[in-house]
Amino acid sequence: MTVFADILDTVRRHEPVVHCITNYVTVNDCANMVLAAGGSPIMADDAAEVEDIVALSQALVINIGTLNSRTVESMLVAGRRANSMGKPVVLDPVGAGASALRNSTLQRLLGEVRFAAIKGNASEIGFLAGKDAKARGVDAQDSCLVTEDRLESAAATARHLSESTGAVVVVSGAIDIVAYSGGAWAVRNGHPLMARITGSGCMSAAVMGCCLGVAPYEMPQACLCAVSALGVAGEIAAETMVGGGGEMGGLGGGTGSYRALLLDAMSLLDGLALGSRADVTRIQM
Amino acid sequence: MTVFADILDTVRRHEPVVHCITNYVTVNDCANMVLAAGGSPIMADDAAEVEDIVALSQALVINIGTLNSRTVESMLVAGRRANSMGKPVVLDPVGAGASALRNSTLQRLLGEVRFAAIKGNASEIGFLAGKDAKARGVDAQDSCLVTEDRLESAAATARHLSESTGAVVVVSGAIDIVAYSGGAWAVRNGHPLMARITGSGCMSAAVMGCCLGVAPYEMPQACLCAVSALGVAGEIAAETMVGGGGEMGGLGGGTGSYRALLLDAMSLLDGLALGSRADVTRIQM
Amino acid sequence: MTVFADILDTVRRHEPVVHCITNYVTVNDCANMVLAAGGSPIMADDAAEVEDIVALSQALVINIGTLNSRTVESMLVAGRRANSMGKPVVLDPVGAGASALRNSTLQRLLGEVRFAAIKGNASEIGFLAGKDAKARGVDAQDSCLVTEDRLESAAATARHLSESTGAVVVVSGAIDIVAYSGGAWAVRNGHPLMARITGSGCMSAAVMGCCLGVAPYEMPQACLCAVSALGVAGEIAAETMVGGGGEMGGLGGGTGSYRALLLDAMSLLDGLALGSRADVTRIQM
Repeated sequence: MTVFADILDTVRRHEPVVHCITNYVTVNDCANMVLAAGGSPIMADDAAEVEDIVALSQALVINIGTLNSRTVESMLVAGRRANSMGKPVVLDPVGAGASALRNSTLQRLLGEVRFAAIKGNASEIGFLAGKDAKARGVDAQDSCLVTEDRLESAAATARHLSESTGAVVVVSGAIDIVAYSGGAWAVRNGHPLMARITGSGCMSAAVMGCCLGVAPYEMPQACLCAVSALGVAGEIAAETMVGGGGEMGGLGGGTGSYRALLLDAMSLLDGLALGSRADVTRIQM
Repeated sequence: MTVFADILDTVRRHEPVVHCITNYVTVNDCANMVLAAGGSPIMADDAAEVEDIVALSQALVINIGTLNSRTVESMLVAGRRANSMGKPVVLDPVGAGASALRNSTLQRLLGEVRFAAIKGNASEIGFLAGKDAKARGVDAQDSCLVTEDRLESAAATARHLSESTGAVVVVSGAIDIVAYSGGAWAVRNGHPLMARITGSGCMSAAVMGCCLGVAPYEMPQACLCAVSALGVAGEIAAETMVGGGGEMGGLGGGTGSYRALLLDAMSLLDGLALGSRADVTRIQM
Repeated sequence: MTVFADILDTVRRHEPVVHCITNYVTVNDCANMVLAAGGSPIMADDAAEVEDIVALSQALVINIGTLNSRTVESMLVAGRRANSMGKPVVLDPVGAGASALRNSTLQRLLGEVRFAAIKGNASEIGFLAGKDAKARGVDAQDSCLVTEDRLESAAATARHLSESTGAVVVVSGAIDIVAYSGGAWAVRNGHPLMARITGSGCMSAAVMGCCLGVAPYEMPQACLCAVSALGVAGEIAAETMVGGGGEMGGLGGGTGSYRALLLDAMSLLDGLALGSRADVTRIQM
């Protein structure tokens, strides 16, 4: 049941070009995370060139974190092009529900582009699933967090969204959920510090692009690989910190070095280590 | 006289959403610094959504570092909305005096938006105060730097700008000044390395947004808390470096690790430590 | 033959203002690298102000990594202005050949602006030299990489482009080439990890801006200084890593800390150390 972990090694072997149209807050983290995972990032976002860039890429990642009228157009053009060429497209609906612009943009994106995967926190996925969840900025509402006792209902929501969109649906949180038409997995990796730096979610979607780019015929497993890889990297990063139990000191043990250590851990992770540490279980539903 | 330091703990308790319309150079640093200080950042900058985002935020920070016609409009729309909802707005007039566009934009912003706080280096504050200071890019002119013997006159300039705008005015430098209608404080914290990384000033304004967001009725103290917290974090970061006297090594002791250590230090700082290290004195005037 | 290394000390003494119109992926890295090298960065990119900013700068760096219609206009306006004021302009043709937009933009830039230096990977320089090289995203094609046995032909291509444009031409890779009308140097510094973080190339161009800004009358030497300085910093960064042989630990030894260590190393490098470590030889041609 850890065969999905091998996909990480495939990423390193094939170095997929991953085209990200993303926000300007975490774009550097996403590019460095794609490189750490073994891919080759390209962040072109002008409508006049995104079709050319999609053509030379293995996957497209659309992130609406700091959308504007110029980039929304680029997302639509690139998404349609990727669809027509059969290349997987990932959607990261950052801040879904937080503004009318985000909501109408998501409606257009979901109407005009077929997504291989959609990844959001519980608030964002809840909003897309029509649960009328309230957004609190770009972070999830406390009342939406996925906990053990809400796991099954959250998985059911995600699977429902998966069935209506055809996409693998990932809900990020203390427990991550990867849902598809055939069921859902719970991933119990990661570390609370991941929520204390910006971009953990964006980087997860970027790694999904890497994995989908080399495994487009096993999309649920590709997403599972990406989500568990980032979670395991997050654990290793915390263990490497000062006071985290690791032998090497990680500077002062705060969030600035944690960010660097997260990239470190991903760049050093391989399929074997991932398979041995990934904590993945089927959710009964 | 260190009661202002408690505001940092209040930020951690309330996790204010801080909306930043800022430059693309240091936007990631600002988001991570807001998180390190205990807030929740959102960097939306499209005019079509900033009113929605202001509505769910506790403070707005406007930074003109890489302004353009699209984002200037967003700044004005967001600023007016924040005013109408009674939410504090911070202005960081990066590069004031460096171009006609910056100068005319600042004139519009100051004419149409009421600021809770304005923070700049001595050149920028001098320009806004009508001192006809010459800008040298985005860094302060040497001739404008705040030193002990120029402290009183710089404080008088800042207080004058505070009285004419109604904003708390912060002058950043080797000595920071926090001026308001009732007087001014000198903050002797910080470290020279802060000027050797990009974004120290932008991050200071972002932390001011956090503090004002939870203490809108004691604005001078909120700004004092933010400025001294960043300064103390800057000192701790330097002490943690290789050769800085700290027990833990901080990589090679250069500016790249200093940047990570600055975020580390802020993420680990609390009101008690801040109160014991903050070097704040009233300026006689 | 290491007199070029002294230019780094001149940068520290004069702190040139370096205006970069660049991509939003690595803009923060470029700003921090300019500071680490001793310059003062300013990243203004709006057409309405770039002429003012050029006027107060000592060099201009144009990077088309995430170009769009708004910033292409700014690049042209700024480039012409820098030409008319006699200030050196650096071109980083990121992803040349990857899209029609990039190609037509490069044609316009090369037609309307006179460059002091052009820096690209072998694919990009090959494209500009009319070699019809195929781009693979923003990374160089394997078939284009500069190796010992292809060194002379790559240098000839670069020198040809130098003669047709009047610019010093830098080809970045495992071996870097600095070519001008009078010949070419090979620089055998650097480390493979530099290709595993985003922005190494962009940062190299930014440092070239610093060096050209203080040594506009010895442009080949200024470029040589910049290229070798970044390469030596890249070596020192690797040596400082865990397992790299350095005494100090560099976190987990991955790409996240390598990025910080690269800035560290540049910020601590001086002309003497650069001169003793730079591995520069004339290429026979």
